Amino acid sequence: MPRIHFQQQLAELKDKLLAMAALAQQALDCAVEAYLKRDEGLCQLVRDLEMAINSAERDVDSMAYDLLAKEQPMAIDLRFILAVIKINSDLERVGDQSANIAARAETLMDSPNVTLPVNLAEMGVRAGRMVRTAIQALLDADARLAETVLTMDDEIDDMNREAHQALIQVMKDRPDVSLLALNAILIARNLERVADHATNIAEDVIFWVRGSDVRHQMSLAAD
Amino acid sequence: MPRIHFQQQLAELKDKLLAMAALAQQALDCAVEAYLKRDEGLCQLVRDLEMAINSAERDVDSMAYDLLAKEQPMAIDLRFILAVIKINSDLERVGDQSANIAARAETLMDSPNVTLPVNLAEMGVRAGRMVRTAIQALLDADARLAETVLTMDDEIDDMNREAHQALIQVMKDRPDVSLLALNAILIARNLERVADHATNIAEDVIFWVRGSDVRHQMSLAAD
Repeated sequence: MPRIHFQQQLAELKDKLLAMAALAQQALDCAVEAYLKRDEGLCQLVRDLEMAINSAERDVDSMAYDLLAKEQPMAIDLRFILAVIKINSDLERVGDQSANIAARAETLMDSPNVTLPVNLAEMGVRAGRMVRTAIQALLDADARLAETVLTMDDEIDDMNREAHQALIQVMKDRPDVSLLALNAILIARNLERVADHATNIAEDVIFWVRGSDVRHQMSLAAD
Repeated sequence: MPRIHFQQQLAELKDKLLAMAALAQQALDCAVEAYLKRDEGLCQLVRDLEMAINSAERDVDSMAYDLLAKEQPMAIDLRFILAVIKINSDLERVGDQSANIAARAETLMDSPNVTLPVNLAEMGVRAGRMVRTAIQALLDADARLAETVLTMDDEIDDMNREAHQALIQVMKDRPDVSLLALNAILIARNLERVADHATNIAEDVIFWVRGSDVRHQMSLAAD
């Protein structure tokens, strides 16, 4: 009986983490849209979401700690709870990055939306897909699905690098839009960081499923 | 007897984490110096340090997991091991930020060291002091010392914000040094991130000592 109860608690912990992931993904989507559409209401929504994320993070952490302290889980259950603690922290940082993007968008409400050599919409979609895929891999305990996230990270790193170079050129050539180009550089970096957090999550899933540590076996260096 | 053995292992875990912290702090110091002195040898050293940090991170993590699995620690010991796992991850990210700074410095070897309205040397010293203080707080189990790190973080946030504004103005006024100003903006951000990681470490120390969760009680938002 106590073991069944413990499995129920693990399922509840997973549900809490999924709710946390949903909040983080919504914050990310809204932040990119707030920037692209110059939408002040969305900036406010991201701020509200970030507070909800911070509260959800404490909730997940506190349940994970209680389970560790009271149930003293072994092997795969222990690894799962440790993975949840780390994934929770990465999701909270996705929320931070989203809040950074929204704060930056907020300074641009009166700036025109000039065409720049960076596809932030696409970078946002990809970063969001990486987070979603990593969480899906957690749900399905699918290490191979988690591995696809590591490949996606290389692509977004490349996009960030190319955008960085192209935007620097814009800053040199067109001083009138240099501030917009700078903001685009910083938002591209925020999105690349979100992708890094998704990668961390994928690695934690692999660690949980396989019990192996894949960190630093692939190059994850940011620009 | 087994309990004494466990305490010895906890002490060993703490030593491993201290070695990790020393590597991260050295990487940070060298990265800032590499930028300020345009020193390519130091950039290489930071790359080497980052690899050593990644290896040390795995080492600490693996010992922490083993202790959790085999000893099933309770209360304060459990919280200590969980704090070590989180601090370990933050130190590894200090290494990442340092590697970013060094990579950026490496692109500037042939650029003049013009005077810009940002004191990156001072920001580097402060960020390093924050990491050192947070680790000292861990060693001494001193939650009040850890709290001073949270205050220091506000100061470095202010420095970053001011530098950001001033450097944007430079980019507008002096297109000839706009690339250098951009690099200074990005390095200031890297240092502000290091300060955030030091803050995370300080919070984990407080959590360990007091058993309370101080996260998100103070504003920690980056620029």
